[in-house]
Amino acid sequence: MIDLKRLDGLTKELKNAGLDAIYLGPSTDLEYVTGLDTHPDERVRGLMVAADGRCFAMTPLLYKEEIVRAFGDVPFYAEWDDHEGFTGAFRRGCEHLGIAGGRIAFNDGVRAVDMLAIRDAMDMKMENGAKILEPLRSRKDEGELALMREASRMVDEVVGMLKAFIRPGMNERQIAQKIPDFFEEAGADDISFSPIVASGPNGSMPHYGGGRRVIEENDIIILDLGGRYKSYCSDTTRTLFTGTPTDEQRRVYEIVRQAQAAGEAAVVKGATGQDVDRAARKVITDAGYGQFFFNRVGHGIGIAVHESPYIIEGNDKPLKPGNVFSVEPGIYLPGKFGVRIENLVAVKPDGTGEALNSFPRDLESVCIRG
Amino acid sequence: MIDLKRLDGLTKELKNAGLDAIYLGPSTDLEYVTGLDTHPDERVRGLMVAADGRCFAMTPLLYKEEIVRAFGDVPFYAEWDDHEGFTGAFRRGCEHLGIAGGRIAFNDGVRAVDMLAIRDAMDMKMENGAKILEPLRSRKDEGELALMREASRMVDEVVGMLKAFIRPGMNERQIAQKIPDFFEEAGADDISFSPIVASGPNGSMPHYGGGRRVIEENDIIILDLGGRYKSYCSDTTRTLFTGTPTDEQRRVYEIVRQAQAAGEAAVVKGATGQDVDRAARKVITDAGYGQFFFNRVGHGIGIAVHESPYIIEGNDKPLKPGNVFSVEPGIYLPGKFGVRIENLVAVKPDGTGEALNSFPRDLESVCIRG
Repeated sequence: MIDLKRLDGLTKELKNAGLDAIYLGPSTDLEYVTGLDTHPDERVRGLMVAADGRCFAMTPLLYKEEIVRAFGDVPFYAEWDDHEGFTGAFRRGCEHLGIAGGRIAFNDGVRAVDMLAIRDAMDMKMENGAKILEPLRSRKDEGELALMREASRMVDEVVGMLKAFIRPGMNERQIAQKIPDFFEEAGADDISFSPIVASGPNGSMPHYGGGRRVIEENDIIILDLGGRYKSYCSDTTRTLFTGTPTDEQRRVYEIVRQAQAAGEAAVVKGATGQDVDRAARKVITDAGYGQFFFNRVGHGIGIAVHESPYIIEGNDKPLKPGNVFSVEPGIYLPGKFGVRIENLVAVKPDGTGEALNSFPRDLESVCIRG
Repeated sequence: MIDLKRLDGLTKELKNAGLDAIYLGPSTDLEYVTGLDTHPDERVRGLMVAADGRCFAMTPLLYKEEIVRAFGDVPFYAEWDDHEGFTGAFRRGCEHLGIAGGRIAFNDGVRAVDMLAIRDAMDMKMENGAKILEPLRSRKDEGELALMREASRMVDEVVGMLKAFIRPGMNERQIAQKIPDFFEEAGADDISFSPIVASGPNGSMPHYGGGRRVIEENDIIILDLGGRYKSYCSDTTRTLFTGTPTDEQRRVYEIVRQAQAAGEAAVVKGATGQDVDRAARKVITDAGYGQFFFNRVGHGIGIAVHESPYIIEGNDKPLKPGNVFSVEPGIYLPGKFGVRIENLVAVKPDGTGEALNSFPRDLESVCIRG
């Protein structure tokens, strides 16, 4: 159902930005406001919210029952069917709200091709609405934090299941396919992204797409996974070893472990995203591996796996109570292996960090013996 | 790897459309040209193809290894990292190809918010590139048809596995979760969309999002599922019964079965998408259920589950050899139940249809006894 408190917050943001309305396509923004979890495709659907709080819903007839159930009697329903196409319904909705010709923002659930079809069908000023809901969504309230703690407890449980499950001879895909079952068993509603199971040299690609490499004895495996619980995501990474790490792996692991801890420790009152990035990165750079850590230290998380605030050089805005983000430094040695460790951290009212994950990070705890 | 024949076909389409270039974001278009299967997110990546055949690749450093592996030495690599942002790399790429300020199309893998960020950062004429690759992609060659036949053989096998698996007492989600395993067993690479398992009254929503309703004795279940095999999708629907259908279910099933057969039979030389829609719809309308079938009869399929040609009122273009599409009429009785039957059909050189699915459609074959 449409969350009237969040809707009200959104209309305030629209007024602050001088916008007449924002159109939310299928996206985590839409889920934040309405609870509806759906994905963009050619059946254009979503919610237009005007600055005066009135709404219309783009409603392909094929989805009508679900959309009405999600949105209730709050919006005007701008219906369209497959052979009419959607632009007429969009115009009717805008006319109904009196926003035709106005400054209308589009959020990240809208496809460029659909926005261009609207541009060609009616007059308006198209604005970038990617960040309108950011101030609201990035500061989790106590209810949201409780869900994120619970989601993180579940992912830690899943990492434990994986440690007990993984043995040499299995391939990456077999392990990846088991992960949704483990999340189900742990009580999650779903996975929050396709898990990464990157073994041996595949670990040198931070976002490895997945393959079927067979796990060997004395191998190294990056597991990056997350689940969803009542719309909220978890996300954690542990690097496991089957058997005994090499000296180089041991050295690299210890550097990453210290970098990750330094990042968490840098979450103090007044710290910025950039400060946390620098604190973690410094450990890696000082150890001589700076060139092998080329991405940001972390990302905010909530209903979306990646959202504000980003933990990155250039983000000089102070972190705020209610922010939740990952701290996930890594070292990626092309052709050899990679190590990454990731915890989520929530900013407490006093500005310090609360780690949401508790699966141990010491080397012994991530070695599979057996 | 970039398919040079397809790239060449694309540049011809660009010239026909008077475009200077097209930018392909993560999408089935991009997969068609390069083989790269990836999804849109805030790490903007993709391939710009100019009308002279030169290319640049938007390359976030985090994905560089995978992108270079997919694209080889064909494009110029416009690299960017997380703290720089992507618009500078986009401009550098356009300047490298000499297309800055030109007429540039964007395809359906681009997010509106990213296109707006580009609009605000540089000068160009943004065009809708949703349909540029349609003429190429909608006519499958023999190699593609062979893959689609194989993918369809696999999904038929999976329907058989499901018929043997489903029993009263299971819930919809348990059945849905089993489907990826069955596809793996049948040899598919992946599922092509989240399968629909809609039982009892849930079957009245054509795109039911999934729940946990428990299957009863003498229940009715719509199964709509598909897999991917070497990039190409299957998609089929069968409506199963646990035990004995009611008289009304029997009547409705028979109407839908005849409608589906009529749709397939309407694929003859010179027939349009609209002709096939009308032929299937007429059976349902004549039987008095017209108001309970409110969506199109079918959609094209290939690398995308939904692509051209659409089998819908208003599509008066003749079907062409190499077109592959679904014929999937249904009757949806709100609060009661739904019936849908779906086969894929390929248009043969003589203009008649070849059904790619062979799981039987007679009532006896879809009743689970046991």
